[in-house]
Amino acid sequence: MTSQVPALDISPETMSSYIERLGRCGEQPGGGLIRPQYSEAWVDAHAVLTEMMTTAGLEVHQDAVGNIFGTLQGTDDQRVILTGSHIDTVYLGGKYDGALGVLTGIAALDALRSQVGRPRKTLQVVGFCEEEASRFHGNFFGTRAILGLVEDAELDDLVDSDGVSLREAMRIVGLDPARVGEARRRDIDVFLELHIEQGRVLEDAKVDVGVVTEITSLAWQLYTVTGRADHAGTTAMRHRQDAMVAAAEMALAVRQVAEEVGDPAVATTGSWTVRPNGSNIVPAEVVFTVDVRHPDEAVLERMMNDMAKCCGDIAQACDVRLAVETVKREPASPTNSGLRTVLSDAADTCGATWRTLPSGAGHDSQLMARHLPTAMLFVPSRDGRSHSNAEYTTPEDCARAARVLATALHALAYIR
Amino acid sequence: MTSQVPALDISPETMSSYIERLGRCGEQPGGGLIRPQYSEAWVDAHAVLTEMMTTAGLEVHQDAVGNIFGTLQGTDDQRVILTGSHIDTVYLGGKYDGALGVLTGIAALDALRSQVGRPRKTLQVVGFCEEEASRFHGNFFGTRAILGLVEDAELDDLVDSDGVSLREAMRIVGLDPARVGEARRRDIDVFLELHIEQGRVLEDAKVDVGVVTEITSLAWQLYTVTGRADHAGTTAMRHRQDAMVAAAEMALAVRQVAEEVGDPAVATTGSWTVRPNGSNIVPAEVVFTVDVRHPDEAVLERMMNDMAKCCGDIAQACDVRLAVETVKREPASPTNSGLRTVLSDAADTCGATWRTLPSGAGHDSQLMARHLPTAMLFVPSRDGRSHSNAEYTTPEDCARAARVLATALHALAYIR
Repeated sequence: MTSQVPALDISPETMSSYIERLGRCGEQPGGGLIRPQYSEAWVDAHAVLTEMMTTAGLEVHQDAVGNIFGTLQGTDDQRVILTGSHIDTVYLGGKYDGALGVLTGIAALDALRSQVGRPRKTLQVVGFCEEEASRFHGNFFGTRAILGLVEDAELDDLVDSDGVSLREAMRIVGLDPARVGEARRRDIDVFLELHIEQGRVLEDAKVDVGVVTEITSLAWQLYTVTGRADHAGTTAMRHRQDAMVAAAEMALAVRQVAEEVGDPAVATTGSWTVRPNGSNIVPAEVVFTVDVRHPDEAVLERMMNDMAKCCGDIAQACDVRLAVETVKREPASPTNSGLRTVLSDAADTCGATWRTLPSGAGHDSQLMARHLPTAMLFVPSRDGRSHSNAEYTTPEDCARAARVLATALHALAYIR
Repeated sequence: MTSQVPALDISPETMSSYIERLGRCGEQPGGGLIRPQYSEAWVDAHAVLTEMMTTAGLEVHQDAVGNIFGTLQGTDDQRVILTGSHIDTVYLGGKYDGALGVLTGIAALDALRSQVGRPRKTLQVVGFCEEEASRFHGNFFGTRAILGLVEDAELDDLVDSDGVSLREAMRIVGLDPARVGEARRRDIDVFLELHIEQGRVLEDAKVDVGVVTEITSLAWQLYTVTGRADHAGTTAMRHRQDAMVAAAEMALAVRQVAEEVGDPAVATTGSWTVRPNGSNIVPAEVVFTVDVRHPDEAVLERMMNDMAKCCGDIAQACDVRLAVETVKREPASPTNSGLRTVLSDAADTCGATWRTLPSGAGHDSQLMARHLPTAMLFVPSRDGRSHSNAEYTTPEDCARAARVLATALHALAYIR
């Protein structure tokens, strides 16, 4: 099959230029991007993408929730091979997370159109309106609209920090909230997402691209430790029921469970509330979050149980109470095995080294994968950094990955 | 000398009644007192104390900062034997902290006046206007005014959470801020303070009263741990520079140093700030307070050094940076040994068991002790509780301690 594929040319300079142009939308004077859903910077990004897609010879349109599409119509088949990612950013995020999937998609479709011609099936690149939940606490909004998973109540329930509802925010950027249902799509055959890895697996292994086996299984739990407030000067150490000392032991136990399971298991105690939080008062209550991830559902369950068990023992030894509440539970989303082969074959065709790996982060693909054949291609992230201005992938890595993506799209839209 | 002392009668019922009456000033519907300096509840307390002192046959006056005094004039000597404590409370404090020292002082002077007659030296009971710093961050305001340690700039620099300056707050309760200097006293020979222990030493030892050897030496430090923010899902455990995991180990090391030194050493990590404090982000920075206390200056210094050393090692092992800043340092305040003997002799006279102990909490006495002969008498605190509605001392314990106080005042004002 590889012999049928032309050598597609996408240059590092093209990728650099794309990344810099989109990266100016929402860029802050001190560095970092602020480009949440339906913000001014987001509107700017739409204008830049419209111009890029048009120049790339694609038909541009926006759907009812503000997903932006560039289309290369198929000759024989109106079913769609979709690629892309999201265009919103976290607060002070980087130029690569999400954006690179959209920009490589445009570059790939441009190369295919100009270097090969019209595809048999329709090719489409998408910039999802939202994935990061950095403005409204309802993420994957673009993907969910496409899959028909948005509920009308969300439009009023979700309110940003300024008190603006999602419904009002849509109106401000010219979208009609009554038409959200029209974003539903039933013509997509396949979804391929290119994304930065946001970790160091590819970098450490010196591998060009990663083929994602599954998006990890995730649990988000609240641990509430209740002890007793006491005077810091007059309460002997042995008489204390110090919620913070107990919680500190628990944080170390949580880490230990993850370390004992080993890669790719991760566990994070990221958010902490201490009450009454006075320097001269023994802490009475500590609430902390435990974020646990592992691609294997059974291993994740075992980790959660081990953590709760260890922390329960610590609570007893420290004479405090512990309550564990599971706030969020995402099952693993395996990608499509046939599409993984398409991606690895494309990498081979392009002379790119590749390996499989799970994704520890959530992505639009995790929802897509539950509804239609989906696969993900990772590119290396320098030093594993993401969600920060330190995000970086070399133009060479970007261009190579865009060629792999284009080659995979060629296999899906031109040959099959 | 004990044979010269009459058996002074102060009943548990008198103490209960006093405690309940003053305890209504600032009492909240859900329990607990809110009676900060110069508040309405504080003004109410002044009215209640004026009435109590008047009924007890004392001359009542208020000084320029709102310290309230009840005086029993001496026959031979206008030098003053002063007793008392503070009338303000922490936010949702109890009825005993501070208040009990004022109320037992009134009861003692009433008993001496009615059962013995006029003293040779002048006896005075004081209700200090402020000790807890629960409204303005400048504590011991009453004591400092008496010792001439208030600076004029404080009146404008200290502002409460509603933006009211100390100067305005004084005016609102009818005090002239220009006259603060007039509160300075040079006629006090001795200060005796009765206070709840706020710990469990007396209760555990089943001892009636405590004679305080010194108010503890204290250090308040800020530990700043700097790691690196990373994605909680994509950053392998071994690649993290998790500031919170490091800080958790440090909190345990701080506790261990205090436990190894043993009673009365205490160390508390009470206040925590975690950044960025997101459930899915590896913590980049943690700032926590370390409150360390020991009555022996040299031991305290050694504890501080050991803690910084252990935590420095932890920082290195965890690949994070640690900065330690000492925010506050209070040297120990030893009480007067002659006065300690007066108190223990008085306890023996009253048939009360006693022991010596250091105070782990700060008190007005710690400042007084640096300027004039000072001693403190502790009464048991049920379960060691304080700064809460759970504060409690039995009426019998209160009355017994008031008799010990009265007996000591008798020795100082009638005999010597």
